[in-house]
Amino acid sequence: MASESTSIPSVAAPLVVGLAGFGTIGSGLARLVAENNDMIRRRVGRDIVIKRVLVRDMHKARAVALPDTAQLTINATDLTDDPEIDALVELIGGIDNARALIERALERGKHIVTANKALLAEEGTALFLKAAQTGRILRYEASVAGAIPIVQTLKESLNGNRIATLMGILNGTSNYILSEMAANSLDFEVALRQAQELGYAEADPTLDIDGHDAAHKLILLIRLAYGVHYPYVALPIRGIRGISYKDIVLAKEFGCTIKLIAQVRECTDESRGRGGVPCLEAGVFPALVRDSYLLAAVSGVYNAVRIEADAAGLLFFHGRGAGALPTAGAVLSDLLAVARNERQNNTGFSDTELPQAGIVPPREWRSCCYARLTVRDRPGVLRDIAGCMAADGISVARMQQKSDDGRGLVPLVFMTHETSAGAMDNVLRRMEDANLLSEPAVCYRVL
Amino acid sequence: MASESTSIPSVAAPLVVGLAGFGTIGSGLARLVAENNDMIRRRVGRDIVIKRVLVRDMHKARAVALPDTAQLTINATDLTDDPEIDALVELIGGIDNARALIERALERGKHIVTANKALLAEEGTALFLKAAQTGRILRYEASVAGAIPIVQTLKESLNGNRIATLMGILNGTSNYILSEMAANSLDFEVALRQAQELGYAEADPTLDIDGHDAAHKLILLIRLAYGVHYPYVALPIRGIRGISYKDIVLAKEFGCTIKLIAQVRECTDESRGRGGVPCLEAGVFPALVRDSYLLAAVSGVYNAVRIEADAAGLLFFHGRGAGALPTAGAVLSDLLAVARNERQNNTGFSDTELPQAGIVPPREWRSCCYARLTVRDRPGVLRDIAGCMAADGISVARMQQKSDDGRGLVPLVFMTHETSAGAMDNVLRRMEDANLLSEPAVCYRVL
Repeated sequence: MASESTSIPSVAAPLVVGLAGFGTIGSGLARLVAENNDMIRRRVGRDIVIKRVLVRDMHKARAVALPDTAQLTINATDLTDDPEIDALVELIGGIDNARALIERALERGKHIVTANKALLAEEGTALFLKAAQTGRILRYEASVAGAIPIVQTLKESLNGNRIATLMGILNGTSNYILSEMAANSLDFEVALRQAQELGYAEADPTLDIDGHDAAHKLILLIRLAYGVHYPYVALPIRGIRGISYKDIVLAKEFGCTIKLIAQVRECTDESRGRGGVPCLEAGVFPALVRDSYLLAAVSGVYNAVRIEADAAGLLFFHGRGAGALPTAGAVLSDLLAVARNERQNNTGFSDTELPQAGIVPPREWRSCCYARLTVRDRPGVLRDIAGCMAADGISVARMQQKSDDGRGLVPLVFMTHETSAGAMDNVLRRMEDANLLSEPAVCYRVL
Repeated sequence: MASESTSIPSVAAPLVVGLAGFGTIGSGLARLVAENNDMIRRRVGRDIVIKRVLVRDMHKARAVALPDTAQLTINATDLTDDPEIDALVELIGGIDNARALIERALERGKHIVTANKALLAEEGTALFLKAAQTGRILRYEASVAGAIPIVQTLKESLNGNRIATLMGILNGTSNYILSEMAANSLDFEVALRQAQELGYAEADPTLDIDGHDAAHKLILLIRLAYGVHYPYVALPIRGIRGISYKDIVLAKEFGCTIKLIAQVRECTDESRGRGGVPCLEAGVFPALVRDSYLLAAVSGVYNAVRIEADAAGLLFFHGRGAGALPTAGAVLSDLLAVARNERQNNTGFSDTELPQAGIVPPREWRSCCYARLTVRDRPGVLRDIAGCMAADGISVARMQQKSDDGRGLVPLVFMTHETSAGAMDNVLRRMEDANLLSEPAVCYRVL
């Protein structure tokens, strides 16, 4: 008697995985592999089996049960040196241990899936080279913008395009703090403490709020978009620490929202070309984003990426930048690509070693600028300020003078036409030298 | 003397392409291949060479020059039967000729890249089967949402996810018309004529404004998201023809924007499960979209897709849905995947033949609803209307009574709590039968 079977047979051997790290993302991955097993089998015709899980403490209580198939270990070699393991998922973070683990695994023929943006930003060149030499797959979708498939999009979907500009909100913690400041009229320190209490910011928030996390991610996106190595130490980074609620309100009056932006633009000035290697203007900085951009509407812990490309035109992607399942889903998509033995170039380029990017010096960056000056309320002050602007060739698009703050100090708020960062620096120094400013000037780019 | 060469050597034989169709997209592709040749070579280590271009008229004047490498032909077999051609790009559109062309090319070992949504929606099952039997790549990124890489995202990046809901603005013409109606207080017919004059709508706009184009695309997205065949003829389709400017204004008062939406949701009711095959609620219809959704902010000819998935959470994609270069860029990304010989499953699933989707009957769809009723201004009318609502178990969330239109007719506008489409049908019929309505009721879902 024929029975009506509904289960989908697995046609190939399972992909055997060694999982390094069983924190939020690692346990999310284990849960997802178990819950969506039938979907995975339909997608790739194989199962994913987690065989070994590397942890620091064998006896720690865990919120998520270990998969039935898996055994805990504290020895990295139980993962890297097990001939049955096909792929290593690296979720331990940090630089040195993670690099050693991945290198040893590559040498022993394992494919790699990692979410480690710091490692790939700072030591990526060596790791991609080793992966190319050993002919292994090295994937890292989860390392940038969580659930947004931006790695795959740049590597595959936009690979016939030239990317003119890429700007992203890549750090959920910073975006959460800025959103809360704007929505609830909070000062920076208050919003930061609140984010820490809710677990959206670490006890030591440096990596997030000072822009380093976004900067690591930007280095990865630059590599994917332009096929160049951009040295992390050369990237200008400014975070959101100390942003004033005042500027958030004033920005809104100019039709803008302050966001922490990671941006790269290709300089089209022919004179900069060095043998066809792109010359880039790249950095992480708080900026006023025009409210007509969807990017300005990105709130809370969400991430977003906005791309202008020669063929595609304007593209915008929005999604969760962190969290157990959004990140685990990205790791899983990489594992399924390994299960299909999909051997694209790991960097998205066929060159084994990528050239170093040309770099536009930050003083030469051009944009409109927002500046808030605090001056003493006296006759002629506006003339003196305007004189400094004119002397450095800076043209004002909009200006607001606010009323006296009661201490005889007046805020003057400007939006300039396009100018260079160097000219803005010069004019602010000129004003300081002339003793025109009662408080340090506040200045942001306008995108 | 060593010369400093800056050109990147091609390491493999070129991918030789037969291009069927040299209209907007075809000539855009030729331009892109020529302009971005160095980028293509860096990406895949090969050149793309267009060898033959199939046209209907050899002597037609063309705005874009034919590539140097290419020869025009009016004989399809010059493409399908040329052993030097590796891949066929099908951009002729329509069903029968395109299907014959693709089938013959597959039989002769060519890989296929197509932008033909109608063909893949209506005849996809046979074509995917033939591609699987012949072991060829069949790619179609350009067939849905232009430059938005939604095909690749569903096939790869979200393949470890279960998709709960996917809703898209997939027809730029309809979205342009609705945007213009809202922005400039236009009636439907005026906005349509304007779109036709600007070339955003065809002389015969049926395919776009009656929802068929969006429906074709939805069938493709359903296949990619759920791995099922959803018969095109079974899809409920309602377009934007005859939408009143009145409802656009009233929707705004409820904090909503009217959009033409293509939507699919998986029904999680266990009793509907048929052996693990997803049961889907799918259709194309105008709906009120809450302004808190980014989808409500999509204006003009842009497309967008909003996805809720179990791991990723909420994702949103926005970009150009049509146009020469945005679409050609998507075709080119497919060609580069062919150049890398990337043999994923063409459907995103390992099964050669996909099961047919379970279908939730439209009367059982549940949502909040918007209804505009036109009633005669007399005592007791509100009681009678409310009585009908209560009789069909429909609970009102918000109501507005507008003032008399001068003819003694009053518009009553309701937003209901979640209810079934069937119950809404019943209550509107009940009101008609009781002669309560002076004009036909207008009813939309609220998303």
